Amino acid sequence: MIHEPILSVDAVSPPAAFSPASDVAALGAFLEIGDRLGVLPYLQRGDTVTAEQLAADVDLPVKAVADLLEAYQAAAIVERDHGTEGGFRAVPELEWLCYQAGYVSWALNANRPFVENPREFLKDAPAARRIHHRDMREVAVSSQWMGSKAFYPALLATIFDARPSRIVDLGAGTGRLVIEVLQAFPEATGVALDMAHDACAAAVEAAKFAGVEDRMTVVEAPIQSLADDPSVLQGAQAITAGFVFHDMMPEEEEIADRILRNSRAALGADGFLAVTEAVPYAAMGWERRFSALVTYMHQQFMGRGLLTESQWRDKFQAAGFSDVVCIRQPFPTGRLFVARA
Amino acid sequence: MIHEPILSVDAVSPPAAFSPASDVAALGAFLEIGDRLGVLPYLQRGDTVTAEQLAADVDLPVKAVADLLEAYQAAAIVERDHGTEGGFRAVPELEWLCYQAGYVSWALNANRPFVENPREFLKDAPAARRIHHRDMREVAVSSQWMGSKAFYPALLATIFDARPSRIVDLGAGTGRLVIEVLQAFPEATGVALDMAHDACAAAVEAAKFAGVEDRMTVVEAPIQSLADDPSVLQGAQAITAGFVFHDMMPEEEEIADRILRNSRAALGADGFLAVTEAVPYAAMGWERRFSALVTYMHQQFMGRGLLTESQWRDKFQAAGFSDVVCIRQPFPTGRLFVARA
Repeated sequence: MIHEPILSVDAVSPPAAFSPASDVAALGAFLEIGDRLGVLPYLQRGDTVTAEQLAADVDLPVKAVADLLEAYQAAAIVERDHGTEGGFRAVPELEWLCYQAGYVSWALNANRPFVENPREFLKDAPAARRIHHRDMREVAVSSQWMGSKAFYPALLATIFDARPSRIVDLGAGTGRLVIEVLQAFPEATGVALDMAHDACAAAVEAAKFAGVEDRMTVVEAPIQSLADDPSVLQGAQAITAGFVFHDMMPEEEEIADRILRNSRAALGADGFLAVTEAVPYAAMGWERRFSALVTYMHQQFMGRGLLTESQWRDKFQAAGFSDVVCIRQPFPTGRLFVARA
Repeated sequence: MIHEPILSVDAVSPPAAFSPASDVAALGAFLEIGDRLGVLPYLQRGDTVTAEQLAADVDLPVKAVADLLEAYQAAAIVERDHGTEGGFRAVPELEWLCYQAGYVSWALNANRPFVENPREFLKDAPAARRIHHRDMREVAVSSQWMGSKAFYPALLATIFDARPSRIVDLGAGTGRLVIEVLQAFPEATGVALDMAHDACAAAVEAAKFAGVEDRMTVVEAPIQSLADDPSVLQGAQAITAGFVFHDMMPEEEEIADRILRNSRAALGADGFLAVTEAVPYAAMGWERRFSALVTYMHQQFMGRGLLTESQWRDKFQAAGFSDVVCIRQPFPTGRLFVARA
């Protein structure tokens, strides 16, 4: 007996044991692949791409790019642009997809040396740290994906509210935050400070591309240098620092304290310091799992101490700030501290 | 002015931009770390553990295990067992957590060589395949996690319904499926066939542990051997094969066809062949993303062809089966084909 049709496939609704984890997993792998192939920037800036043109742009065989676009379309990462023969463009929610992928990318890709070698780290962390290094580009990419929806919105809202005439960003990376502020406030000036040469070079290029190079200074220096020479902080109305101070704990905590005091001294009466940081073991249901991972990764593998909300408050007060507000972020375990004179 | 309390932390409900991806990411990293440290089996079998005893069992410092248990408790992977001083045990839903972690673990851990080196594969796949190998233990672990909720339930239901007197599992791994069937049906006998020596050795041990060693035969051989010598299939009332036939496509499709014909010949009138497979680019909304990833990984990186539901039907019919049913699984892109005479 042959059934026609034989395929007793059931309805569109997902089965009871369906898990959204499968979607997250697929996005993580697909977007990492797209990032490494150099394909993602074209989609992120909203281009309509064809396999032929994109293959030429990223130096890959046309067939390979066509297959990838087919897979991306099946995965609802791109969709047909019917105005262009063979054209595809990102789905409107691509930034949201990258945001979701950022979490798995940080946990399992940027931190891969820890996930793969936990025994070595738990037996002798200093020795393991000398051998197993994270790929800092992967750290930056996953942080940017997470940050797009999780770190930046509350920080930008705080800065835009204040309309600062001068902003200094510590650990500025490619200068993205400063550039965004300078574009919004045509009279403002800014400083992007980072110790990484490649990041600073990229920041210079990005400032030119954005047309703000006359108002933006890129300083290639470690943040630690501000403990003894705080001249780049002078005149700032907003000083920002995202996930940089915990990197000095515990060994360089005294240096961090001096930088905070120097920041307080440099800021005018209406200025503020905005510090984005991770607090340890946040206990709210929606953030507890990822917070636990962030905490554990820092403590066990990176050898970094995270401070609690109260410890941060005490630290800002000890540096001379008297008005400190803590704002929870959509980023699990993330807090934005805004400290004013 | 000092606010007391200064921390304007908002309510328990997650912010609008909260993503469950952060939970999935944390589970993936934490459970992989627990698996690699050897900690997970103790939790999976429901033990109450203390840091001291567990540290001795897995050969790690007590402090390291205590820190891990603290992190696991914060992440709601374990909970206090108040009946034991310093005791912890897995949360009741641990199997479900592993199931979710299985997807990210497969996508980003088991398939890491593909995610890290896509350009090499897209430029010259055969050359890349010779250099970059997957860690087959990671493939097995992630597949087992996914399978616990996604592959096995429908398959077990089919087998238990039929109450077979003899089952033969092709690509049996550590024999888990056969053992479960033999435990349920005390008169039944079974064969677990796998080409991997380590898996077969583990299957022998597992059979002894389960007390079914008198009724279970472990055969260390490639499935391909059944094309010419199908004697191990003889007398089977149920032949099962999970995700093994596509590994022969396209190069060994003719061998696969002969194994299917031999299976048809070996099965009695009331016997059946149950094949779990992945179909390419399943289009349902809830499964399309992970299905696209499974399809793309197989086609581009592993060089494997996936057959559609119709192609599988035709193949079973060509092998002499006349009654073929296709059952959708909770595993996105997974299908269970049950073929009868």
